[in-house]
Amino acid sequence: MPSASKTVPDIVIGRLPLYLRALTYLTEERREITSSQELGDRLGISSAQIRKDLSHFGEFGKQGTGYNVLFLRQQLQRILHLEDEWEVALVGAGDLGQALAHYQDFGRKGFRIVAVFDRNPQKIGKKLGKFEIFDAEAMPTIVKDQGIEMAIIAVPASDAQDVADALIESGVRAILNYAPITLSIPPFVQVEYMDPIIHLQRMTFYLA
Amino acid sequence: MPSASKTVPDIVIGRLPLYLRALTYLTEERREITSSQELGDRLGISSAQIRKDLSHFGEFGKQGTGYNVLFLRQQLQRILHLEDEWEVALVGAGDLGQALAHYQDFGRKGFRIVAVFDRNPQKIGKKLGKFEIFDAEAMPTIVKDQGIEMAIIAVPASDAQDVADALIESGVRAILNYAPITLSIPPFVQVEYMDPIIHLQRMTFYLA
Repeated sequence: MPSASKTVPDIVIGRLPLYLRALTYLTEERREITSSQELGDRLGISSAQIRKDLSHFGEFGKQGTGYNVLFLRQQLQRILHLEDEWEVALVGAGDLGQALAHYQDFGRKGFRIVAVFDRNPQKIGKKLGKFEIFDAEAMPTIVKDQGIEMAIIAVPASDAQDVADALIESGVRAILNYAPITLSIPPFVQVEYMDPIIHLQRMTFYLA
Repeated sequence: MPSASKTVPDIVIGRLPLYLRALTYLTEERREITSSQELGDRLGISSAQIRKDLSHFGEFGKQGTGYNVLFLRQQLQRILHLEDEWEVALVGAGDLGQALAHYQDFGRKGFRIVAVFDRNPQKIGKKLGKFEIFDAEAMPTIVKDQGIEMAIIAVPASDAQDVADALIESGVRAILNYAPITLSIPPFVQVEYMDPIIHLQRMTFYLA
């Protein structure tokens, strides 16, 4: 089997989690069958686009009978490597880190926060939700020892690159970065950005 | 002058805030001149792409002398309609709403949160940072009366569509949605999504 990660456009990969999310809601509604038309209506994506995206990975529905919700959901979880839980380090225990530590969806969706780090002595040793806050100095050792491959950065922009460098040096291969700065990252590491300002500014362009 | 919003690809618009952010950091570093090469290196975007993107809006640098940082920054602020402050409603005063209310960058970047809403009686009337939390019932009236055009949704997924409908009915034309659900939105309204799960799942595809 050819490696899909080399042949499927990144923009297609970016839509798969949206399909998975829609299928999860359909599951909660106890729906058994859906169609590319229905998924498209829910997501604001054309049904042709959805069929084309899924065709990169195989044949998931029969002409005229639609998709089995549970089966397609399982297949997407497999494709996205979500069958096993991922351990995640959270760096930064400020307001945002606190909200993230409390966000139940991480655990529910298979991303288990296993360690929280901060460099503020007043925070180290305290609890953040159910997590103890560890000294950021201990981060490389803990990340390496536990084999943590994913991390969430929720520190100020001025610290984010140093944190990212330390994480990558310790074996992290995917970073969700909330700091409002573009990170310099080697090509074998994934990075995704969560900066609300960037998204707000993109919208104001369209407002007169 | 032709309307840029009709002729410039959306993907180009999406990169302009990144250019603006990089220019803002350069300003803080007291840099006066930059180049598409330097911007590209900072952003992981090719210099040719940056020059092409900017060329949609005019001529901002001279061959061989680069860009004046302040001038290009001003021009991008003008193009993105960031010369005046935008008033923003924040809906949802939970953990995430709290982190957002405390996030200083909104104000610094010209997005002033002017009202916070929640429907929880125990929260209404209390303070969230410097904001009083208003009853969500009053949202349509307040949003309409104040002419608020932008809103941030930080409520559970099950409430997000109703909140969006009420906001749009009251005149909101751009929504930053933190609820993990795709909203059904009329074409004259902008929407951007902030769901960390979607971004984490996009990265695990690339992890073996």
